[in-house]
Amino acid sequence: MVQYSAALDHGFAALSDRTRRGILERLGRGDASISALAAAFGMTLTGMKKHVRVLESAGLVITEKVGRVRHCRLGAERLEDETTWIATYRNVLEGRLDRLEEFIERTKGPQS
Amino acid sequence: MVQYSAALDHGFAALSDRTRRGILERLGRGDASISALAAAFGMTLTGMKKHVRVLESAGLVITEKVGRVRHCRLGAERLEDETTWIATYRNVLEGRLDRLEEFIERTKGPQS
Repeated sequence: MVQYSAALDHGFAALSDRTRRGILERLGRGDASISALAAAFGMTLTGMKKHVRVLESAGLVITEKVGRVRHCRLGAERLEDETTWIATYRNVLEGRLDRLEEFIERTKGPQS
Repeated sequence: MVQYSAALDHGFAALSDRTRRGILERLGRGDASISALAAAFGMTLTGMKKHVRVLESAGLVITEKVGRVRHCRLGAERLEDETTWIATYRNVLEGRLDRLEEFIERTKGPQS
């Protein structure tokens, strides 16, 4: 589970901000320029560029400059490592909860 | 997809650090005190307390003070909203990629 640490750091960090998740949802409905995104989220161009850069470094967004306009679209990053990490963690957690339940059952002793 | 924004922010942020993911993996093998965790990760008590606080505020860890020792165990947070968000995003992404492929096929024209 410790593999791909840096990629997981970047992936989860990119998702940890509601504006960045909103940008991904927006780009899921169609490509958009940085300025269109900034307008849609009521944000300065500089602020939007920062968010897009974080998403770009996690592979979640691809940008392309055409003339003076920077176009954004979804990258091919499928968040597979993030999904695997969470699924593995949930298995571990279920195991712990099951063992805790067994322990409680065992220590309850005979019903009175 | 915009529901539970604050909880998703905290959940993903908690997972965005390899030490915090390591702590969850460690607690998956058994409960531990803050000082045992600090020793295991070669970290100061203060540093470990900060990480545990982040995990605690995301519901991923529960701590309990017994005497002078603070014990840590996994919380019941199953990361369900995080899993749902990623799964929904992956569906959107697959849809975009499929449509892109169709578009490329259509614009290729007849094979020469």
